[in-house]
Amino acid sequence: MIKLGIFDSGIGGLTVYREIRKALPGADIHYFGDTARVPYGTKSAQTVTHFSMQIALYLDGRGVDTVIVACNTASAYALDALRNALRIPVFGVIAPGAEAAVKATRNGLIGVIGTRGTISSGAYQRAICELDPAARVVASPCPLFVPLVEEGWLVEPITQEVAIKYLTPHMEAGVDTLVLGCTHYPMLKEVISMVMGGEVVLIDSAQETASKVKGHLEKKGFIDEMRAGLELFEVTDSPERFAEVGRLFLDRDLTNIVHVTIGEKED
Amino acid sequence: MIKLGIFDSGIGGLTVYREIRKALPGADIHYFGDTARVPYGTKSAQTVTHFSMQIALYLDGRGVDTVIVACNTASAYALDALRNALRIPVFGVIAPGAEAAVKATRNGLIGVIGTRGTISSGAYQRAICELDPAARVVASPCPLFVPLVEEGWLVEPITQEVAIKYLTPHMEAGVDTLVLGCTHYPMLKEVISMVMGGEVVLIDSAQETASKVKGHLEKKGFIDEMRAGLELFEVTDSPERFAEVGRLFLDRDLTNIVHVTIGEKED
Repeated sequence: MIKLGIFDSGIGGLTVYREIRKALPGADIHYFGDTARVPYGTKSAQTVTHFSMQIALYLDGRGVDTVIVACNTASAYALDALRNALRIPVFGVIAPGAEAAVKATRNGLIGVIGTRGTISSGAYQRAICELDPAARVVASPCPLFVPLVEEGWLVEPITQEVAIKYLTPHMEAGVDTLVLGCTHYPMLKEVISMVMGGEVVLIDSAQETASKVKGHLEKKGFIDEMRAGLELFEVTDSPERFAEVGRLFLDRDLTNIVHVTIGEKED
Repeated sequence: MIKLGIFDSGIGGLTVYREIRKALPGADIHYFGDTARVPYGTKSAQTVTHFSMQIALYLDGRGVDTVIVACNTASAYALDALRNALRIPVFGVIAPGAEAAVKATRNGLIGVIGTRGTISSGAYQRAICELDPAARVVASPCPLFVPLVEEGWLVEPITQEVAIKYLTPHMEAGVDTLVLGCTHYPMLKEVISMVMGGEVVLIDSAQETASKVKGHLEKKGFIDEMRAGLELFEVTDSPERFAEVGRLFLDRDLTNIVHVTIGEKED
């Protein structure tokens, strides 16, 4: 049986977990959320790469066959380093999102929103321009979107005003496709779509990544068996809090949540 | 020469640093900001206590004479544990803030705002009621205030609307004193005061803590010499970013910023 490792800075990667679970109901999945050190999006490339490496090596040591980096910031900063360090396949969320955006755009104008880290890394911009050198990319960070989601203000007037402020450059540039380059942002789809207008295509990297992972496994001869895959959630902060917010992300109760520490020396 | 250790989850503790420096210009100060793991305010008591203990023991090992916990969440959760573990004096920001609030109130109605962790710990509420059992406390978390400060939206209309939403219960209760129970909140004094009305006293724990530390040192016979105290800033994420935001907090350039890791095993 295939065993997939998914990791994220915290809880947002559950949007990726959800899509992978939908695509591969029979796979065993080991989800790792670094909830004690979350967020990654405001931290430096060095620190994000260091944390990501600790987690990927840990998952590898726990016997997963494939690692999926659900966090956009970790994908943006650390993917190459992880691929160099591990012998198993490592998937990020940037390339699938960029591919979907290039396929979706009609006017060649693509918007990308994400954390400060993801945007300033230039990873989406590079990935899009490699696929379509004629594409024009407008990229900007939206640092308040994650705290707004975590506050539960998904459709509040304040959230709409923040969205207008952040998205105005994208509207003014006339983008017809917008990449939601952070795992939390799909939770704000309603407000973002209201602000951008219904004709702008919103790209959710989670779905694209899941279909890419599934395609890869099928090519390798993997058959998704008729069984319910096992699931294990490991987190670096309290399991209770993860269970609480996780319910909002997955619309069901999560069981098998375990607290672990990572990279720390024994007391 | 006295050597003070101040620590915080990140950069916000510089408001405490600033007040201590003003009160004790001749003291050497070692500031530790856990910028790789910031914030603490959304994390569990166990994790915040664990991180705080690592840092306090580290500062103790570096030879400081006194530890000041500049972070409200760390003070709320970890102060007792740190005092049990260390032989040197440990100051938090909760008790000084509570004392100042009890002195300031005329109608006995005190508001407290802070992170989710600080508020749900009940530390301010307990400290105030111990000093004045007749006081009534309204306490509520304001999770968006920190990201708004870090976005630099100090006086934006959106910030004002968020403040109205968070502060309405305090206004309705008729508090005449409001404790700014998070190091970032003094940066929003202007908006908070506009919303609450100029007659409501805003308590900034940083000032109160500095005068308490100074009083303690003077009682011990410490004389603040006519010299400029040395300063060292240690951070767990990149020094560059700390220097950048630190300038906003201190209105001057910071030098002597060093990157360190803490609690980690060697690679």
